[in-house]
Amino acid sequence: MTEIVVIGTGLIGTSIALAMRETGARVFLADRDQASVRLAVELGAGEALPKQPTKPVDIAVLAVPPAFVAATLRDAQKRGLARFYTDVASVKARPVLDAVELGCDLASFVPGHPLAGRERSGPAAARADLFLGRPWALCPTEASSAEALEAVTALAKACGAETMIVDPIEHDRAVALVSHGPHVVSAAMAARLGDAPGVALDLAGQGVRDVTRIAAGDPALWIGILTANAEPVAEVLDAVAGDLALAAAMLRAAAKAEAGVADVIVQKVSDLLERGNTGRARIPGKHGGRPSSYALVSVLIPDKPGELARLFQAAGDAGVNIEDVAIEHSPGLPVGVAELSVKPEAADPLADELRARGWSVPR
Amino acid sequence: MTEIVVIGTGLIGTSIALAMRETGARVFLADRDQASVRLAVELGAGEALPKQPTKPVDIAVLAVPPAFVAATLRDAQKRGLARFYTDVASVKARPVLDAVELGCDLASFVPGHPLAGRERSGPAAARADLFLGRPWALCPTEASSAEALEAVTALAKACGAETMIVDPIEHDRAVALVSHGPHVVSAAMAARLGDAPGVALDLAGQGVRDVTRIAAGDPALWIGILTANAEPVAEVLDAVAGDLALAAAMLRAAAKAEAGVADVIVQKVSDLLERGNTGRARIPGKHGGRPSSYALVSVLIPDKPGELARLFQAAGDAGVNIEDVAIEHSPGLPVGVAELSVKPEAADPLADELRARGWSVPR
Repeated sequence: MTEIVVIGTGLIGTSIALAMRETGARVFLADRDQASVRLAVELGAGEALPKQPTKPVDIAVLAVPPAFVAATLRDAQKRGLARFYTDVASVKARPVLDAVELGCDLASFVPGHPLAGRERSGPAAARADLFLGRPWALCPTEASSAEALEAVTALAKACGAETMIVDPIEHDRAVALVSHGPHVVSAAMAARLGDAPGVALDLAGQGVRDVTRIAAGDPALWIGILTANAEPVAEVLDAVAGDLALAAAMLRAAAKAEAGVADVIVQKVSDLLERGNTGRARIPGKHGGRPSSYALVSVLIPDKPGELARLFQAAGDAGVNIEDVAIEHSPGLPVGVAELSVKPEAADPLADELRARGWSVPR
Repeated sequence: MTEIVVIGTGLIGTSIALAMRETGARVFLADRDQASVRLAVELGAGEALPKQPTKPVDIAVLAVPPAFVAATLRDAQKRGLARFYTDVASVKARPVLDAVELGCDLASFVPGHPLAGRERSGPAAARADLFLGRPWALCPTEASSAEALEAVTALAKACGAETMIVDPIEHDRAVALVSHGPHVVSAAMAARLGDAPGVALDLAGQGVRDVTRIAAGDPALWIGILTANAEPVAEVLDAVAGDLALAAAMLRAAAKAEAGVADVIVQKVSDLLERGNTGRARIPGKHGGRPSSYALVSVLIPDKPGELARLFQAAGDAGVNIEDVAIEHSPGLPVGVAELSVKPEAADPLADELRARGWSVPR
């Protein structure tokens, strides 16, 4: 039976514990906050790590903030806690450098980063399925042993994740672009709403909701990530700030210029919007497909229990697999619109089937 | 019977036409692009406007880009096309100023802005239900007659919208904050992904997808909106750019500072994240509630036809109304996670009911 230790019973650590418990592993839990350990134990994530463990477990998972990874690794290795070690921090280069400085054994250590998270944090938000199908970056150093990589890979796969080998520095630049940078950008946009007049909030639609959703994240958790990946994040923020300041200047200049000149000035802003189109289109959709590779079928749905069931029943009867669904709702109104994403060839048959069953499917 | 003319058969104009047709109104359609008119007619949005209309209709809806509203109003008024006029441009102050300059009759004109849109544009994307429960800002000038306001209000309500009276300048500042600014911010973030390495896109999660979703919008349409609302948008972009540049500088400075000093420097970044929390929390959720007012129930679902139907059937049987659903999917994996938003008191009964029916509902 696999035995692991999880140090740090927050969202990620407890979720790994839950996932490994489902595979039959024995899981020991530790955290500097004893209440957090007790809660994780109650949630079925494992048992508290004894003060004097009798023998090394297979893997110790260091699920602590980036700045504490190296010291936690050193302490765990001193105690001989495990044969192999991994961490789950969102930043990889800095913890490795710290580990070198602290004289940790690097052969048994494979830095890792499961790309999974939620707006909620702490053990209560943990889920055994948090990593299902999610990328899990593994960033072995040149010193990492093949056995350590094999063991940590097996752990990530046991949690249901898709493992990827990534160089630590490449990893940090990548997550600055697709995670850390977007987080600060979202926060900076959301910050503008702090003293916005009520009418602005009354006029808020889905767009600003989406742009600012991740701004709800925990500042304490994020500040640890951002400071540990400072330079790559700063480069992304500088580039975005530069584009926004330029767009602002061009909009102002165009407003004062004559028509022909204004068109030329505004082209800079158009270029930014075009680059936005291009960048957005590069993000893979679900199942690895492009967001545009699905067709949308919109259906009016009464806002009461059972209607979505009837709708999906009809789709199932038509043999159509719904890839995604978004529900647009109307404050105070008794109807909403369900937007079903389906394979393009399934859109017309689905619409016909739904209409035949009396659903309102606008053409 | 109400008679209206819609000038401009794009997404918004055609959707108004479809909505008014459903109320039994007679709708005449015009556009400088005849193919667009023909498509709108085929979609059932109304009939082509004759070259020489015999008598004024009740309302003419000017569904043209902001820069063309005033000239279109002047031409329509010269032809005596309607008793009352409104527009649907996303910007309000500039078209009013233009209309004054062009000597339009302002008594019969009530500027308007339905807050509805999609990533898709053109008549084929139009929907009769586009405005259901959505805000529709009405921005009467001091010269607007009470009769005109009454008629245009009735039109917006007939389309299913919630009308709000807003001062044109307040309107423009509001939409700069909650629509135009976020659009450019989303584009600037998405633009960073244009030459991002493949590994970054492999590591992209839901956060960056949400932040950049609206960056897929049509640049030509947006450039018209942004230039017509240049100063308020520029102020938002400048403020966001300033916060991002400051955050970048502070992250870099903190990385070079000693621990105690670094903490003080980084506090500026923490402040921004905190302000992001505050701003985000001010956005009303669906049904006017706060986003946090629903509880989440997560359920594992096999990725095949009929499973969502079974899931929603079970929820319906439990008498639970699902307020929203998000499906998190796993590239290449045969399962996904459905996150059901329900009223807090319904969460436990729903989870119990689902478990009793054999669903995997992580605690």
